[in-house]
Amino acid sequence: MNPAVLALTTDFGTAGPYVAAMKGVILGINPDARLVDVSHEIAPHNIREAALCLSQVVPFFPPGTIHVVVVDPGVGSNRRLLCVRMRDQIFLAPDNGVLSWSARGNGTIERIELSESRFWRSEISSTFHGRDILAPAAAHLSLGITPSQLGRPAGDCEQLPWPEPSPIPGGLQGELLAVDRFGNLITNFVQPDFPVAARSTLRVVFGTTEIGPLVRTYSDVREGEFAVLVGSSGLVEIAVRNGNAAERLRAGPGTRVRVVW
Amino acid sequence: MNPAVLALTTDFGTAGPYVAAMKGVILGINPDARLVDVSHEIAPHNIREAALCLSQVVPFFPPGTIHVVVVDPGVGSNRRLLCVRMRDQIFLAPDNGVLSWSARGNGTIERIELSESRFWRSEISSTFHGRDILAPAAAHLSLGITPSQLGRPAGDCEQLPWPEPSPIPGGLQGELLAVDRFGNLITNFVQPDFPVAARSTLRVVFGTTEIGPLVRTYSDVREGEFAVLVGSSGLVEIAVRNGNAAERLRAGPGTRVRVVW
Amino acid sequence: MNPAVLALTTDFGTAGPYVAAMKGVILGINPDARLVDVSHEIAPHNIREAALCLSQVVPFFPPGTIHVVVVDPGVGSNRRLLCVRMRDQIFLAPDNGVLSWSARGNGTIERIELSESRFWRSEISSTFHGRDILAPAAAHLSLGITPSQLGRPAGDCEQLPWPEPSPIPGGLQGELLAVDRFGNLITNFVQPDFPVAARSTLRVVFGTTEIGPLVRTYSDVREGEFAVLVGSSGLVEIAVRNGNAAERLRAGPGTRVRVVW
Repeated sequence: MNPAVLALTTDFGTAGPYVAAMKGVILGINPDARLVDVSHEIAPHNIREAALCLSQVVPFFPPGTIHVVVVDPGVGSNRRLLCVRMRDQIFLAPDNGVLSWSARGNGTIERIELSESRFWRSEISSTFHGRDILAPAAAHLSLGITPSQLGRPAGDCEQLPWPEPSPIPGGLQGELLAVDRFGNLITNFVQPDFPVAARSTLRVVFGTTEIGPLVRTYSDVREGEFAVLVGSSGLVEIAVRNGNAAERLRAGPGTRVRVVW
Repeated sequence: MNPAVLALTTDFGTAGPYVAAMKGVILGINPDARLVDVSHEIAPHNIREAALCLSQVVPFFPPGTIHVVVVDPGVGSNRRLLCVRMRDQIFLAPDNGVLSWSARGNGTIERIELSESRFWRSEISSTFHGRDILAPAAAHLSLGITPSQLGRPAGDCEQLPWPEPSPIPGGLQGELLAVDRFGNLITNFVQPDFPVAARSTLRVVFGTTEIGPLVRTYSDVREGEFAVLVGSSGLVEIAVRNGNAAERLRAGPGTRVRVVW
Repeated sequence: MNPAVLALTTDFGTAGPYVAAMKGVILGINPDARLVDVSHEIAPHNIREAALCLSQVVPFFPPGTIHVVVVDPGVGSNRRLLCVRMRDQIFLAPDNGVLSWSARGNGTIERIELSESRFWRSEISSTFHGRDILAPAAAHLSLGITPSQLGRPAGDCEQLPWPEPSPIPGGLQGELLAVDRFGNLITNFVQPDFPVAARSTLRVVFGTTEIGPLVRTYSDVREGEFAVLVGSSGLVEIAVRNGNAAERLRAGPGTRVRVVW
């Protein structure tokens, strides 16, 4: 059996000691763990941003991957810690909805509330459960224990509802979920939200700027022009060819956006 | 035997080629080396910041870990390069005090001055000993040579004194050592600095702001309120629940802070 | 045989999901791949910056290393994707010149245009060929297929000319290629550009500032003084000892610089 991949998603940043402390704990338990960084630059305590980023990488990780997700504004409170099985992968995270968007359209097989402290560090801080509980639990999973050994069935968990676009006359109202490093604006629209006949006529409207119809890729428009296309994660995005749409439109996460056709 | 963990701490940043060049050198000598990044975002030449970050991760790394620490303002001068054994781990670093805070309260077993050039790259630049000397030496250690093969006993080394708090009437004067990504302020106080009876009455004083007493975790105060607590590395820290204490107090590394009781 | 090193150079940043999605794809095909990040902070679409960074790390990676380079402003257009063998290493990249500076002075053995889609993901997005084509192709290479299995001979490829310094009366005109995290200015001069006799008299001229002659290392000048030296990649650089030359000279990539002797 190949050693499991352990994929880490946090809001810790990479400048300080927090990520490395988690990795040290994991490697102390399973020196063969294959550590992969998903992102450590989730904005502090931003559960939505983490949920989106995670949902964009999960489809590309192999079965058996163990994800450790530490965006945990409730650390030290009575919020629970979970181990969730879905999509042939395993997820360890606080019970705050951060896994919801990765679970969309996929049956969740099992949800466990972490309670078996024999799989934790012997000393538990009150402010860093990622290092003291989630990291060692993940390392033990990678050595072959099952999720059910980590605790008891969790029952209902916190959900983070997907921000579905809402109908408006002649189209849909949505919002921007993220801006990537290229300034591309990631919306909450997916192509099936639009009637098939609308694809050749639809316009994205930002204030007085109208962009459309859908193109296939950036180079289908001229340098410096706007493009609307289905991005690599299946979400509709607004880009400027070899430019920065976020700067041009002064838009960011949360900005509202309309599509009409 | 499991292949050793090689943990890297530098001030190189991750944008340019320096970290990857070191990793290439290591993997050329030991393709099985398990590389872990501690931080590459230490402020340029900031020995104190590196010393603190390293001391916060070392307790969580397994025995046998080989740390390569390259914060080296004296590169090319006559400063020495060291291999130090302590805490069942091995450290390669310039002789500039960067290891001092990791050694606190732990017996240093062995200090070697690197002199055996057969474990270095054949060409040594005058500005990048991390790549040309420390990286290959670490890779050879990970293959099983002993520290003493790398050179001769080093004798006394540079020390970076820990900034002990100093007594003031009714309390202690200390300072901020670091700010983390959440804006939490890490002080140089540890809980044993305070009389047991003082824990329920102590106040941290920043100008006209008083914060206290000690709480256990962030969620013991209300959203947006200040908290004083013992952080995950054992140092007392000042936080704002789901907020940013550094911004609220306009404080950063070096800012003085008083505790009274 | 040791599992191959897969080294990744992109302009994706590390905050979002793009790098991790590529790693997930690679590990799904070859769980033993040894992933190394070269840089993900190349400025968006900056082929020159990527070409320079790559050329500075390639000499330090072991034979057999597989480089995946994704700085790809033409993604989705008819630009080709290449697999190139040179320097005992293998490179996967768009045909946009990004490999040119790593090839300087080294015979390129083989250039293949990727066309065998059986080594790609089954679904190919129009905006992320790094994830859908280059990552799986690299993973298959690491499992032992040969470059020629990936496609057909590529013939002539895009070249990015090295910016050779040009002669001026009494010296050379060059430019800055990069600024590192220490504020050191990396020029396009190499030491052989200067007559041997000139090394003890040469002056670098920035407006009214003259710096020189060549020294061996930073500590050959006083704190806060300028130094000109041959940097760790063989390129001449301008530094301030324990200071920041880029800030002092307000210079950056593209700034012109003269050397006279």
